[in-house]
Amino acid sequence: MAWWKVSSAGKDVNPDLASERTFPSFNVETLTNILDGGVEETRHRRSVVSTIQKDPVFSLENLYFKTRAERYEGAVRNIFHLKRKMKELGWEDNGKEMEYAYRALSGEHALNIHNVFLRSLTALGTDEQIAKWLPLANNYQILGTYAQTELGHGTYLRGLETTATFDPATQEFIIDTPKITATKWWPGDLGKTSTHALVLAQLHSKGKNYGMHPFIVPIRCLKDHSPLPGITVGDIGPKMSFEQIDNGYLMMRNIRIPKENMLSRFSEVLPDGSYVKRGSDKINYFTMIAVRVSMIRGEVVEALMKACTIAVRYSAVRRQSELKPGAQEAKILDYQTQQQKLLPLLATCYSIHFMAKYLNDFYNKVFKEIRKEDFNSLAELHAVVSGLKAFATEICSNGVEVCRKACGGHGYSLYSGIPSIYTKVVASCTYEGENTVLHLQAARFLIKCFGAAQSGKPLPGTTSYLSTRLSGGCQANTHLDFLNPDVYIKAYESRAYSSIAAAASKLHRLVQSGAEQYEAWNSTSVELVKASIAHIHYIIVKTFVSTLSSLSAPPEIKTVLQRLCDLYALHGIFTSAGDFLQHGYMTGKQLDLATTAYLVLLAELRKDAVLLVDAFDFTDQQLISALGTYDGNVYHNLLEWAQRNPDNKKVSPVFEKYLKPYLQSNQSKL
Amino acid sequence: MAWWKVSSAGKDVNPDLASERTFPSFNVETLTNILDGGVEETRHRRSVVSTIQKDPVFSLENLYFKTRAERYEGAVRNIFHLKRKMKELGWEDNGKEMEYAYRALSGEHALNIHNVFLRSLTALGTDEQIAKWLPLANNYQILGTYAQTELGHGTYLRGLETTATFDPATQEFIIDTPKITATKWWPGDLGKTSTHALVLAQLHSKGKNYGMHPFIVPIRCLKDHSPLPGITVGDIGPKMSFEQIDNGYLMMRNIRIPKENMLSRFSEVLPDGSYVKRGSDKINYFTMIAVRVSMIRGEVVEALMKACTIAVRYSAVRRQSELKPGAQEAKILDYQTQQQKLLPLLATCYSIHFMAKYLNDFYNKVFKEIRKEDFNSLAELHAVVSGLKAFATEICSNGVEVCRKACGGHGYSLYSGIPSIYTKVVASCTYEGENTVLHLQAARFLIKCFGAAQSGKPLPGTTSYLSTRLSGGCQANTHLDFLNPDVYIKAYESRAYSSIAAAASKLHRLVQSGAEQYEAWNSTSVELVKASIAHIHYIIVKTFVSTLSSLSAPPEIKTVLQRLCDLYALHGIFTSAGDFLQHGYMTGKQLDLATTAYLVLLAELRKDAVLLVDAFDFTDQQLISALGTYDGNVYHNLLEWAQRNPDNKKVSPVFEKYLKPYLQSNQSKL
Repeated sequence: MAWWKVSSAGKDVNPDLASERTFPSFNVETLTNILDGGVEETRHRRSVVSTIQKDPVFSLENLYFKTRAERYEGAVRNIFHLKRKMKELGWEDNGKEMEYAYRALSGEHALNIHNVFLRSLTALGTDEQIAKWLPLANNYQILGTYAQTELGHGTYLRGLETTATFDPATQEFIIDTPKITATKWWPGDLGKTSTHALVLAQLHSKGKNYGMHPFIVPIRCLKDHSPLPGITVGDIGPKMSFEQIDNGYLMMRNIRIPKENMLSRFSEVLPDGSYVKRGSDKINYFTMIAVRVSMIRGEVVEALMKACTIAVRYSAVRRQSELKPGAQEAKILDYQTQQQKLLPLLATCYSIHFMAKYLNDFYNKVFKEIRKEDFNSLAELHAVVSGLKAFATEICSNGVEVCRKACGGHGYSLYSGIPSIYTKVVASCTYEGENTVLHLQAARFLIKCFGAAQSGKPLPGTTSYLSTRLSGGCQANTHLDFLNPDVYIKAYESRAYSSIAAAASKLHRLVQSGAEQYEAWNSTSVELVKASIAHIHYIIVKTFVSTLSSLSAPPEIKTVLQRLCDLYALHGIFTSAGDFLQHGYMTGKQLDLATTAYLVLLAELRKDAVLLVDAFDFTDQQLISALGTYDGNVYHNLLEWAQRNPDNKKVSPVFEKYLKPYLQSNQSKL
Repeated sequence: MAWWKVSSAGKDVNPDLASERTFPSFNVETLTNILDGGVEETRHRRSVVSTIQKDPVFSLENLYFKTRAERYEGAVRNIFHLKRKMKELGWEDNGKEMEYAYRALSGEHALNIHNVFLRSLTALGTDEQIAKWLPLANNYQILGTYAQTELGHGTYLRGLETTATFDPATQEFIIDTPKITATKWWPGDLGKTSTHALVLAQLHSKGKNYGMHPFIVPIRCLKDHSPLPGITVGDIGPKMSFEQIDNGYLMMRNIRIPKENMLSRFSEVLPDGSYVKRGSDKINYFTMIAVRVSMIRGEVVEALMKACTIAVRYSAVRRQSELKPGAQEAKILDYQTQQQKLLPLLATCYSIHFMAKYLNDFYNKVFKEIRKEDFNSLAELHAVVSGLKAFATEICSNGVEVCRKACGGHGYSLYSGIPSIYTKVVASCTYEGENTVLHLQAARFLIKCFGAAQSGKPLPGTTSYLSTRLSGGCQANTHLDFLNPDVYIKAYESRAYSSIAAAASKLHRLVQSGAEQYEAWNSTSVELVKASIAHIHYIIVKTFVSTLSSLSAPPEIKTVLQRLCDLYALHGIFTSAGDFLQHGYMTGKQLDLATTAYLVLLAELRKDAVLLVDAFDFTDQQLISALGTYDGNVYHNLLEWAQRNPDNKKVSPVFEKYLKPYLQSNQSKL
């Protein structure tokens, strides 16, 4: 077959990619097992992924050519098909299989927020309420959404304006959108799908506002799906990504719902309108933490892992310019500047992965404590999760863009797969808590701990280092000293300590000189965000080091992981050098040594780069990338995809309407 | 009218935005005139923009709801309509009016690369060739594209694989795509529009390769627009943005074109196949520089200006959380962290704007010299333009994303206008020279200058500071000292000097210890990129300061511009602190002082922020943003746009196909 009639990618692996795998310095499969948490987990994950990918209904082919309407329809089709399939195969709701299946679908499924509706119902409803609504929702006889955010209000829940006013005469709540800014805005599945909304509203009874409470409000007719009287509902329109999701808006004009529709596990309105609170709802607060923990692993690091896989493989295939005069054009991965873009990100994938694992264990520990009514560790967990969510979403989404740009022009094509990864993952900087807000929450905890340390009080584990400032400066004398984890951990510790101490001292100074507490806080917030970043960065480095020291793995795997850990730590010193120098812990000369060590590591890790992304074990179907396939046949893929583009088969009306009159005038000169 | 029946945005300016303009500290119109380059220029620009925007054919309404095919058709319609309109109004091709008109169309017009075809034809063709082809192309009787980049080859022109082999028997060239990687890929207007391509190909004659030359190749039939025999052509498919542009691919299988189709101003093949070179083609190299100079002003800074306008106005309207306990929710612009995100970017707009102006003057000076065959300043101009292109595109595109995220959830909606600005401007990091490659080119010039300085040779203006290292360290003792431009200019100079010196010394050391020159260069390239950044950053700061010192403007405008200049410089010190500390020019204590000065400036500039974006003078139609309208009625806009979304009027097949069977089963429980 002539080369220009590309009908399917070649079966052979591109020799430039094959050569990267010829003499592996470690066993990739073993590393995959470590990432998965065991051989059995790898097997299980692969079996689910393969079940999904073998099913033609779930095909993601031609995704980049689809309209929003087609993507939405596909996402709905997928979730209903998956529901049936799960039943057939005996996969449990919310089990491991479902997690793997969702990941295999790359987010192309609807009813995510229906699941949030389910979770919230279970958490906030009484046993009777759960008994009534849960089976209906589980069987898709009703479809729910979770309507909290409003057009004019996000993070600050007390600012929400939707009202639920109790009417004792009819034993109903009147749900109302009193102003344009109170319009519910953003809930997923709301735009075109849901029949019921779990509405968060200010509860008014007997003239008093009791704050935010959850209410189940029917919004669409179950017979014909039309909006119920008093309801205005629709899709909020196109976003940067998530074309398949119908985020919606909702206005309710004095809708009446029965009293029983207020979810009442933690509080209730009695028939006479009096308000009763019961138990602690701290557990809800815990749900939010759970969501953040799972998103870091499930969406955020995975996005960067995919982008690294694509960019690293492409960089081993793409050749450009002479590196050595007269030689063949070099693989772009051989350029130091390309290594500097990609390898620290690869190290970031591993570091955040291990950090997320640590956090998951921490979470499970606190979960057990909470069930015994022990809330001691909750504030600490909340602070670490907030800081990590903000840190990881920022670093991973920026990293995905770096990977994309590192693929040059082809990175800009949707076929590279990276634009879609970026425009999706970057949303995580904003949802589930805006990053700056989260850093400031984490900082509040750190300032509190710092104050406690000053008064000699004991500190929780992650902040215990605040009890004593490290004495002396960095001890490194040669660049090799920077490959000693103890050396860089101390540098990170010192940076975190100094940043927190500086912010605390500025706060103190401002209040001493007469500023109100809130003014002082606002005037210090730039430094407070820096302090939170320095703290979480330190925890991540420390966690990577301690994970490796307790890891049982073959020595060659330990070696490569240690290099990644070193690279991660030294790259952080290189890029945030000011923080390490400012308070005098390190000297400019030591920074030079750290830089040398860092650049040497780039060259060392370069040879393992392809293996290290192979270990993430993404299938080609998961990557949806012409540049990132396992076989490295990138140019065949690009051309094949372009030729497959349905747009190339349609006749554009442009020729007849606009071009023809010009092109066909006065052609004698040609 | 009830508030929920929003049919058009309110006419009144949102009081939260109006209050920002009540007591302006300077005259916004005067600042606009300064940015435009005079009162008359402002008037002229506004008159063109208004002409375009009044014409319903050019309406950009509902842009975010359109498919790729609709966007493409609209772009073709717009350019043909503009062509007629320009003729009517007597606007010249490539004149100021056309520039303003293009900007008013926000890129929604086709045939950009047809213009590159025209320019290249004029630059590379003989007088006869120009006489033949130019009128045809000018009248759209043929539509051209410029086909250089190939599927497997970008920046490195010598690597291009398309061949043009001279056949003396027929006096023709045989144009061929010998391999899949030689497929022409990316040219704009090629996918569905062009009839002719200016193909760059390796010229072979008498068995010898003479390198890259330009050939005019007919590709589509003028009668029915079908591809000519031997031609395979199509659209490369969806990209991160530029939906309206039909970037294409092109394969040519032994296409024969007459000898006259080789553009022969600088070289020619004689009938016997011998090759003749004439004159210098350095001027072509100059064309590339011209494109970069104009893109920085015309696309790159403008993108950041638009994003800042949207984000700053929105931040004065959006209220969130209590800043002061018990008070109304605060404008988010009053939070220091929000100021820290937006105000340095606002300062960046001004600094890059003035730098681009300086560069334009520099360019014009060199242009005049070159016409007198004086090529002395060409290398210097090339280095500054390369460095600035890389620096500005990176900083501006990252800045646009910061603005977007600073708008929280609403920034993620296409209605904010910022996603489209970002996905478009970020392409500029890659096209017209990949940024890392450009920084390394600039660095090569800097290293050369540094070497010349060491041997006491004279240096060109922008690098003259390399002749002597500043003696002594930074002299600042209080934070107010950092508002002295002399203090921060020296800090930037010292940082640039040290970075370049460090890279030069490493290169020298590596070569001394036996490395090949190319290896040493590659192993130093991370530092070389840093050196180029430090150099260009210094030039930008210096240019901002010198622009202000020679500017005649009312004192209150000088005051605010001086603050922007100070903020720009101090923000750079704050964010790249390591560079300023590493070589000992500044101390950690001085960095604290600089940080203090920087944070004080944030608070001072906050009150002028809205005025400073108003001065950019974008119309609402240019911003295409629900968040950025002059009247600040953001919530009305969002709701109106959502309700206007045609998708909300269509009935999705999803209910009938997927939901109904579930929703209508067993409803007795409800």
